[in-house]
Amino acid sequence: MKLFDVTVAPNPRRVRIFIAEKGIEVEYQQVDMRGGEHKTPDFLRMNPSGKIPVLETDNGEHIGESVAICRYLEALHPEPNLFGATPVELGQIEMYNRILELELWTQIGTSWVNGPVVAQIAAGRFKQNPQAKETSDKNTHLFYERLNRELKDRSYMAGKRFTLADITAMTAVDFASELVGLKPEENLEHLWDWHERVSARPSAKA
Amino acid sequence: MKLFDVTVAPNPRRVRIFIAEKGIEVEYQQVDMRGGEHKTPDFLRMNPSGKIPVLETDNGEHIGESVAICRYLEALHPEPNLFGATPVELGQIEMYNRILELELWTQIGTSWVNGPVVAQIAAGRFKQNPQAKETSDKNTHLFYERLNRELKDRSYMAGKRFTLADITAMTAVDFASELVGLKPEENLEHLWDWHERVSARPSAKA
Repeated sequence: MKLFDVTVAPNPRRVRIFIAEKGIEVEYQQVDMRGGEHKTPDFLRMNPSGKIPVLETDNGEHIGESVAICRYLEALHPEPNLFGATPVELGQIEMYNRILELELWTQIGTSWVNGPVVAQIAAGRFKQNPQAKETSDKNTHLFYERLNRELKDRSYMAGKRFTLADITAMTAVDFASELVGLKPEENLEHLWDWHERVSARPSAKA
Repeated sequence: MKLFDVTVAPNPRRVRIFIAEKGIEVEYQQVDMRGGEHKTPDFLRMNPSGKIPVLETDNGEHIGESVAICRYLEALHPEPNLFGATPVELGQIEMYNRILELELWTQIGTSWVNGPVVAQIAAGRFKQNPQAKETSDKNTHLFYERLNRELKDRSYMAGKRFTLADITAMTAVDFASELVGLKPEENLEHLWDWHERVSARPSAKA
């Protein structure tokens, strides 16, 4: 198996952490995103959406979308379970993962595309919206507060154990803190306790 | 099992179609969304995101997010299979479903919240952005064209058979056509052939 990867991007990191948790052997190939390699005809044949990461299976099939890749890997390598082992767990882990994507990742993404790093990378090729960033900055911090309240009663994002939802949340918080200027406030102790717990896992370095 | 439902909303329709395909018995309870019932403390205890639909299981657990509810139902009632039966199918159906959500539903959603129906419902409580709508209208039509090209080579959204990805696409196209003024152009024959195929299923009436 081969993963088309970009080390600095947060979505491929979700897959790398998942692979590290599973202990799977995967070949990594860096894609030259700055050079537009993900929009070339060869890449679009693998993933018509022109997005990274993409997994190439041993049979030469291609799977795009981070969570879809993880779902494939979970089916091939069921242990340790990261998507849920019972019907209710499968439903609730998917629910928490989606809430994190739809209510946290979207806000961080809006702040990112309308923020200073993208301004520099895109340099005029892209019209930014400072008002949108103001709203998404605020929403991100409100969501951190919600997470802090919820984590008072559970150790991990989807319950009592580490799952895909924790990978989604950790990559979001780390990307937001390091590259978008959206670090959670210091007084959100339950959120920070969780962050310390998940960051201590060897997979977090992936 | 009980589904907290809003008949006119497109996301609960995804779940209702899924339930109809599976032939499962579920009790439906309408939520008074206009009256704000989904933001009351009782509802937020079931789903802290305050969104519809929510499934209440026979054990009193709650699952929010349409696809998470469907995932739970698939685990309880595996046939007919709608999420994939092999690792590659599981990955590819999730990939196509996510592409439809991230690249089609988000655009239709942007046109919806910035369009005339919401203007009337929200009546000044919400600042609309006509420029965003212009872009998302255009992106929706571009994505319809992409789907039309891809459906030349496959009968259904994720391959040779009806899956969750078709439910996601059908509810998107119907909602966009009927309520957002974004009907696919008549000349997109492969897209319309697909639409006829999925609309002919009894579940489409759900």
